[in-house]
Amino acid sequence: MLSNHLQNGFETAKLVWSQIPNSEEAEHEGVGLLSTSGGSSSVESLDYEVIENYAYREEQAQRGKLYVGYSVVVKWFFALLIGIGTGLAAVFINISVENFAGWKFSLTFSIIQKSYFAGFLVYILINLILVFSSVYIITKFAPAAAGSGIPEIKGYLNGVDIHGILLFRTLIGKIFGSIGSVGGGLALGKEGPLVHTGACIASLLGQGGSTKYHLRYRWLQVFRSDRDRRDLVTCGCAAGVAAAFRAPVGGVLFALEEVTSWWRSQLMWRVFFTSAIVAVVVRSAMGWCKSGKCGHFGSGGFIIWDISDGQEDYSFEELLPMAVIGVIGGLLGALFNQLTLYMTSWRRNYLHKKGNRVKIIEACVISVITSVISFGLPLLRKCSPCPESDLDSGIECPRPPGMYGNYVNFYCSKDKEYNDLATIFFNTQDDAIRNLFSAKTIHEYSAQSLLTFLVMFYTLAVVTFGIAVPAGQFVPGIMIGSTYGRLVGMFVVNFYKKLNIEEGTYALLGAASFLGGSMRMTVSLCVIMVEITNNLKFLPLIMLVLLISKAVGDAFSEGLYEEQAHLRGVPLLESRPKYKMRQMTAKEACGAQKVVSLPRIIKVADVVSILRTNKHNGFPVIDHSRNGERLVIGLVLRSHLLVLLQSKVDFQHSPLPCDTRGGSKPISHSFSEFVKPASSKGLSIDDIHLSSDDMEMYIDLGPFLNPSPYVVPEDMSLSKVYNLFRQLGLRHIFVVPRASRVIGLITRKDLLIEDGEDSTTVELQSTSVRAQRRDKSLLTRNTEAELPLLNGLLVEDHN
Amino acid sequence: MLSNHLQNGFETAKLVWSQIPNSEEAEHEGVGLLSTSGGSSSVESLDYEVIENYAYREEQAQRGKLYVGYSVVVKWFFALLIGIGTGLAAVFINISVENFAGWKFSLTFSIIQKSYFAGFLVYILINLILVFSSVYIITKFAPAAAGSGIPEIKGYLNGVDIHGILLFRTLIGKIFGSIGSVGGGLALGKEGPLVHTGACIASLLGQGGSTKYHLRYRWLQVFRSDRDRRDLVTCGCAAGVAAAFRAPVGGVLFALEEVTSWWRSQLMWRVFFTSAIVAVVVRSAMGWCKSGKCGHFGSGGFIIWDISDGQEDYSFEELLPMAVIGVIGGLLGALFNQLTLYMTSWRRNYLHKKGNRVKIIEACVISVITSVISFGLPLLRKCSPCPESDLDSGIECPRPPGMYGNYVNFYCSKDKEYNDLATIFFNTQDDAIRNLFSAKTIHEYSAQSLLTFLVMFYTLAVVTFGIAVPAGQFVPGIMIGSTYGRLVGMFVVNFYKKLNIEEGTYALLGAASFLGGSMRMTVSLCVIMVEITNNLKFLPLIMLVLLISKAVGDAFSEGLYEEQAHLRGVPLLESRPKYKMRQMTAKEACGAQKVVSLPRIIKVADVVSILRTNKHNGFPVIDHSRNGERLVIGLVLRSHLLVLLQSKVDFQHSPLPCDTRGGSKPISHSFSEFVKPASSKGLSIDDIHLSSDDMEMYIDLGPFLNPSPYVVPEDMSLSKVYNLFRQLGLRHIFVVPRASRVIGLITRKDLLIEDGEDSTTVELQSTSVRAQRRDKSLLTRNTEAELPLLNGLLVEDHN
Repeated sequence: MLSNHLQNGFETAKLVWSQIPNSEEAEHEGVGLLSTSGGSSSVESLDYEVIENYAYREEQAQRGKLYVGYSVVVKWFFALLIGIGTGLAAVFINISVENFAGWKFSLTFSIIQKSYFAGFLVYILINLILVFSSVYIITKFAPAAAGSGIPEIKGYLNGVDIHGILLFRTLIGKIFGSIGSVGGGLALGKEGPLVHTGACIASLLGQGGSTKYHLRYRWLQVFRSDRDRRDLVTCGCAAGVAAAFRAPVGGVLFALEEVTSWWRSQLMWRVFFTSAIVAVVVRSAMGWCKSGKCGHFGSGGFIIWDISDGQEDYSFEELLPMAVIGVIGGLLGALFNQLTLYMTSWRRNYLHKKGNRVKIIEACVISVITSVISFGLPLLRKCSPCPESDLDSGIECPRPPGMYGNYVNFYCSKDKEYNDLATIFFNTQDDAIRNLFSAKTIHEYSAQSLLTFLVMFYTLAVVTFGIAVPAGQFVPGIMIGSTYGRLVGMFVVNFYKKLNIEEGTYALLGAASFLGGSMRMTVSLCVIMVEITNNLKFLPLIMLVLLISKAVGDAFSEGLYEEQAHLRGVPLLESRPKYKMRQMTAKEACGAQKVVSLPRIIKVADVVSILRTNKHNGFPVIDHSRNGERLVIGLVLRSHLLVLLQSKVDFQHSPLPCDTRGGSKPISHSFSEFVKPASSKGLSIDDIHLSSDDMEMYIDLGPFLNPSPYVVPEDMSLSKVYNLFRQLGLRHIFVVPRASRVIGLITRKDLLIEDGEDSTTVELQSTSVRAQRRDKSLLTRNTEAELPLLNGLLVEDHN
Repeated sequence: MLSNHLQNGFETAKLVWSQIPNSEEAEHEGVGLLSTSGGSSSVESLDYEVIENYAYREEQAQRGKLYVGYSVVVKWFFALLIGIGTGLAAVFINISVENFAGWKFSLTFSIIQKSYFAGFLVYILINLILVFSSVYIITKFAPAAAGSGIPEIKGYLNGVDIHGILLFRTLIGKIFGSIGSVGGGLALGKEGPLVHTGACIASLLGQGGSTKYHLRYRWLQVFRSDRDRRDLVTCGCAAGVAAAFRAPVGGVLFALEEVTSWWRSQLMWRVFFTSAIVAVVVRSAMGWCKSGKCGHFGSGGFIIWDISDGQEDYSFEELLPMAVIGVIGGLLGALFNQLTLYMTSWRRNYLHKKGNRVKIIEACVISVITSVISFGLPLLRKCSPCPESDLDSGIECPRPPGMYGNYVNFYCSKDKEYNDLATIFFNTQDDAIRNLFSAKTIHEYSAQSLLTFLVMFYTLAVVTFGIAVPAGQFVPGIMIGSTYGRLVGMFVVNFYKKLNIEEGTYALLGAASFLGGSMRMTVSLCVIMVEITNNLKFLPLIMLVLLISKAVGDAFSEGLYEEQAHLRGVPLLESRPKYKMRQMTAKEACGAQKVVSLPRIIKVADVVSILRTNKHNGFPVIDHSRNGERLVIGLVLRSHLLVLLQSKVDFQHSPLPCDTRGGSKPISHSFSEFVKPASSKGLSIDDIHLSSDDMEMYIDLGPFLNPSPYVVPEDMSLSKVYNLFRQLGLRHIFVVPRASRVIGLITRKDLLIEDGEDSTTVELQSTSVRAQRRDKSLLTRNTEAELPLLNGLLVEDHN
């Protein structure tokens, strides 16, 4: 029914399209550039740095299965590399932060033995220098490395390419920036940035290095399809979480629940492997550091707030205060999301428009404020006498100078006193959390100190959120949550007067509740909390608290990452269609938008004027068969058209299809050019200059189109269309008129094809049940064929 | 372009189709009956027991969003009920098994003080009675409750309805059958059956009870769509695992990784809640039982093989033997899968065809053999002297009679001796595993005993697999794995001569490796192992071992559940298309199969003859618009046609569409009838008797069809079609010719519609970035409209 030349065109198209990088698989497994007239300044196409080797691809297409095996091996090897790389990056960041912070605190402590004012100045100055270095790196060198990076990665894996987030400079900026910002004592964490770091490492590996810095190797350039790259980035995210929290299972679940939009079980397996590697790398580094080779860095460098020797059991009376913690977490979390949203949007619209200088000043001011508060407030607090010594618990009061531990002696008149506010405020965040979680330290904190800390730190966290440094929200969230959790715990201890209740347990639940109320994660957060506290006993309690806090939070606002993604203009597609879509059809969704179709053989001048006058990213291609019937033969991408225009090698003088011109190979194009060049925003139509002779020539789009994009009939319910688009990760769907006939019906059994077998012998040979069934179906087909009565109704399509 | 009467027909169809149960949502979110000429005896349609209330549905359609809110509440309430129900079922099974087994062992031990032979006979007899009761229940009452049930549930959630697996009688059979089979000491576990139990509870709740047993309540009948039921069953699976292992996170991951085929993040959240409820229920029951109210059942009743006081650390030298354990696990696991496959297929084809009597005899013979081996082999074993008493460890040797513990004194000549083979063989499986995992018991077992046990138990597990009782493979797998793991551990202890190595750690790794090699789960198994041993320290090691064993196993065969599903004729669609499909088109997949299309107004006689002469489950419906154009207007299901034929109320005399006959409501049909009746295989064409007058009448299919099934163009690559089918959970895809034009192009931005807002104000109002972008897009559209030059190329579709 299709004429021969059309068929040939299709054959070529299929062959060629599958060779164009980022095309076929991209189209059905995980991509979606912002199409048509979108494109805010922050949402740009990602610049891939792959140069394709045409001959190599030709070869690989012939090798077939062998190549599949090879690429599987490479994928696993890359998962290994991502694990090692992310693990090492995490170790480096941890060692640096621990050493800077440790040096800072020990210097300050030694100075305040003489003068508190001098110590104060030194403390402020060191923090300022560290924060300045961080914000300087970010503003001058790697602007995309600011913030946590998780919303952007989430967007990338949802199918939105955001310019600059996965560059080599972003990686460098992220690593060094977070050393400065975390070491400088700001109210932010290094965990979100580590996730981004893992993603950057994965993406750079997937590109085979960075072109700009001449760090590219041919043997690494295996991943040409967008899907493979996004899989790698998923691995990188999991590795980041695994490294940040030493929580390998939590990492896998984080990648699954929070980050990815498309998930396949094969990928789970690979992500799992990456996480395991990270765990091994981090553990080795910690073993190596235990001998003191890493300065201040020791077993305390990685987050493990071990509470496995804490509360043994819980009674049912405790469930009510725990539920209260959940509610508080939901409320404070939702409030946090809302406040940070206002902050960030105000910053974007007013403050940060004034240039980098303002950003630097802002970060420095916040650093000074943070230093003043964290040093000054404990000064105002009266010291408490040490509790009666309990030799069993092994907790000294006051702690020996320069060591980690509870009961900081700070601005106290007597030796046997400690300052409870300094214990949490004038400390690294890791140590503060360890103190808040600590068991066997009932009555360490006064309610007044905890409340002061809660209010001040909450405010600092809100204000700090959004400044131009790498910033994670995990650790601040845990700080906030564990503070009010411990407050509730204090109340419970006083009210129930039981001996086996530990305030530290409530602090843990508070931390979980705040994170649940803010980030709205469930399973992954739960597992992360269990892994970082090394205590499985409280799993059901953590679950309970998370359920409540997420439910409460959901009643008010969206999750932190979703809100931030919205704000940054990352158009995330949620997993579920909106209720409104049930009443809409596909045609209505397209609205008044005009479809610009191209003929197969098109004049260059027409291509140029079409590309100039609209911003669509995909164009249907239409051809006529010999009997004059119009047929949609495929989809051509703007980026491919631009490449064709630029290279000019496929221009032809005659308006006839290329495959009719003779037997020679019609594609005189190097496929490498279809990949966007490194570190740029891709070609623009304004970059291309054509002579008037060129403009009069023609292009045959046949070989360069995607011959079978997904289609939907015009009156299909939009929620169905949404599912199709979202589940398969598409960029374009054609809305077409209803078909006039059905050629075939594909059902489950048509898809039960085994590799390497004939399609009729699908089932297992050893079972007679299957054999019987096959006979039956043959019988059925025979009876069908024997019934001429039905001929009028049977629509046979074997033409 | 469509004529008016067609359009009206569509409107009606859309309205009505959305009211037919199991239709629209089923079609795009999680269903797939075995279509067309399939249907082996074991694969039948599931019988739902829902009777629809038409007026109620009408009302709910009008209530709209309110109804959505209501159904969300009910879904959560059901998740709660599933959690409680599964938790209670698990507690009941555990109490029963523990009491039967405890009573059996204490009776036997008290008798063997006098006569070993009498004890032997009593032991055999009790086991025989228990196993007989189990196999009798299964064969006579609930045949679908045999086996583990996981492959069937997996098939159900993949979209295959298997007759009888989710009935009330299956639930009862599963619960009481597994008490008998596990209490009777066979080489099988109660964990798989508990997963099936959870699924049954969920499914029965989703149906609003069982019609057959008059246990139905109107207010429970909210879940009419297949998708909702499958979601509930997913919750039930997770609840089953959570209850079986007291591993709530493991349950969530098991449901995610192993069981479901479609997964949405909203579902994860609900599954998580169900698991948390189970954890609370089980914990409460255990607290209640600790006071001794449950007989032999105490804290030991639920699987927790606590090894948290075991090995503290591991050195890198140990990684090699651990890798060896992984390899052994992969090999033995793959062998186990292969052997059980042969066994099961032989049973199905020869043994079980001879009827229930043979099944009962078989189970009884295996019970006797198991009893003889587990009692007899320890008799042949020489006792070892007790190790020097170590008061710190708290382990007595020999253990006090009638208690749990290591060092069983069995057929020993002296008091201070124990029989190491009896410690693992003549014991409940839970206690045997606890002993194998136990720390501080180096040199408890001799290599000879462990080898004997390994060979015998492996053989027993293979032979027992597939007999007609409920049977899980988790616990036998852990038994086998921990035996060879402990063997390797013994070697390591002897070779490295380090004090801090525990054989129990190697037993744990062995267990993980065997399960990994057999079931091929990764993340979920890892988490389950961590949760049941209550020790997070070995997580990276378990990951490593699982990676190796799964990789080794995958080299030989498929996973246990996949192979069993294949064998039972459950056509699972894997998540990834076969390599071969890349070279095939949609049209080729349909092959020589004829498409039987129906006209919209069809003669009853034609319907009957079509349904008689083929077994297709779906038929395209074709109509002509007024200008004579043929159009595919939708898909009608066989089951719906059968309902129409049976009820006859929609028959009409004139061959004109029903909506042209007048203003009256054309649908005179109760929608309840479209749901398949309870506990039957649904209607068959042979059940329907029509008079010759009836045969001359017509039916208008317009209101009863699915107006927009998914379509693919004929030459789309089959791997694309596969992804569409699998990801969206479809039953039918129409293969249609290429479209002649494109009406619209749907891209990401077209789908960014917010509920309750106008579609042009999609983005957040507070950010100016968004506002800019919107302006830009408006601009673009304007420039488009101004260019008459392109009119020839623009295909506008506003007709």
